[in-house]
Amino acid sequence: MSTQQNWFKILMDCKNNVEKAIKPHLKTLNDPQPDLGKGAGGDPIKPVDLSAEKAIINTLQNHNISFSLISEESGFEKYGNTPEECYITIDPIDGTTNLTRGLPFYASSIAVSKKPIMSEVYAALVTDLHHNISYIAQEGKGAYRDGEKIKTSQITTLQEAVLGMDLNTYKVAEIAPKLTDLIQQSKHIRHYGANALELCYVANGLTDAFVDIRGKLRTTDVAAGFLIIKEAGGLVTDIDNQPVNVKLDPKQTLKFVASGNTKIHETILKLVKH
Amino acid sequence: MSTQQNWFKILMDCKNNVEKAIKPHLKTLNDPQPDLGKGAGGDPIKPVDLSAEKAIINTLQNHNISFSLISEESGFEKYGNTPEECYITIDPIDGTTNLTRGLPFYASSIAVSKKPIMSEVYAALVTDLHHNISYIAQEGKGAYRDGEKIKTSQITTLQEAVLGMDLNTYKVAEIAPKLTDLIQQSKHIRHYGANALELCYVANGLTDAFVDIRGKLRTTDVAAGFLIIKEAGGLVTDIDNQPVNVKLDPKQTLKFVASGNTKIHETILKLVKH
Repeated sequence: MSTQQNWFKILMDCKNNVEKAIKPHLKTLNDPQPDLGKGAGGDPIKPVDLSAEKAIINTLQNHNISFSLISEESGFEKYGNTPEECYITIDPIDGTTNLTRGLPFYASSIAVSKKPIMSEVYAALVTDLHHNISYIAQEGKGAYRDGEKIKTSQITTLQEAVLGMDLNTYKVAEIAPKLTDLIQQSKHIRHYGANALELCYVANGLTDAFVDIRGKLRTTDVAAGFLIIKEAGGLVTDIDNQPVNVKLDPKQTLKFVASGNTKIHETILKLVKH
Repeated sequence: MSTQQNWFKILMDCKNNVEKAIKPHLKTLNDPQPDLGKGAGGDPIKPVDLSAEKAIINTLQNHNISFSLISEESGFEKYGNTPEECYITIDPIDGTTNLTRGLPFYASSIAVSKKPIMSEVYAALVTDLHHNISYIAQEGKGAYRDGEKIKTSQITTLQEAVLGMDLNTYKVAEIAPKLTDLIQQSKHIRHYGANALELCYVANGLTDAFVDIRGKLRTTDVAAGFLIIKEAGGLVTDIDNQPVNVKLDPKQTLKFVASGNTKIHETILKLVKH
């Protein structure tokens, strides 16, 4: 069941079922959302996260897939008879705070790999759940937004570029000075609060790069987005310009720069201090 | 023509005409947008900015209003026989870069005042042009989102709060250290790249505060949003907790903190360094 051909349909089925599952939660947005403790990644779990996770698991099971789940919420779990043949790395709802506050930026992120390693991801979906836009990619087959092929931006100067950047950390006193030179030369910096979706903005050429050197973001947030960027013609490295080839694990964090093209990537890396 | 009763209809007419005026520009988003020099506020002008400005001016003229225009694009201009009876402070398109890149956050901002002074603004409209949502307020009559009364958030802790913050400046080396304590204690920081709209998020309780101490934002960006926040129950001050009562002028810049409630406002002010 894990041919590339099938994954497009399976992932879109996941998206459709996540959409249905979160609808009742959207209606009660202004009610207080009970807190269900912390997820495997360390973030507080909300009911909408669990509903979305359940929708993804059920969809995969209905397709008779055996898989090992690597989830922002539930951590590491095995399903079916041969769970080692397929790893599914998910953030059921990326941007839960946005969703619960009514901010129109939240997504669902699903990455499929042969092994629990970033470089092995071969199919990926990120769905912008508010605007109902799906970004999908399969290794070697390009990246698509709602069926249309997408390409990264060819903008090469920071003067023109729009950069996504996450500065939100208790270690800001240590992190901010490393980014000062980059911010100083940039004209347009954004942070929408849904990292998987912000990676798709890079893939789609809406922004030119996304920079996160906090060492706080998890593989569950980015595994799908990284493949989508690469298949759209962009690149992702660590701050030493080396491939980000980490283990897919709910607790694994990473630092990275993702860019639309090599030229702006190198410009950014030169300005980010170690 | 400048009674409070009339402004609701006039401002909504402006919104409808801006929507129509920008439509042809949205269709050609992927084409290069010719640069038309710099606006009165110092930002590059795009054709879509001028189309939106023209739509607002024409709408006001069709309503037989005499007015002095204070615009992000054209600067200071007089229309009609008695232009001193009414000041119209506008940013025709707030978030032009978002619009031209396809990022779904851009707005039109219109503030009406008796004199060219912030405290005299008595009617205001900010329209989220991508999602077609209008925020409107009249002095003493409350703030409304698409006709429904809105209120600011009552969240008082930075742990729970979502803060809007604009850090984008070549003076970041000077500004960032002043915000380090605040960022350190905050869990959710956002920047959507359309300041007028981000002020409406505070008014609507989607976020809890917006902080901009760069001294770079202009009165044309915030004049409407400030009234909408105040009428929704929030507050706006400078970093010394004093009213921001500046001249309405395309070149006038300001620093401010806008919050949903007094408690979180005071918490933020204590953490922002001078």
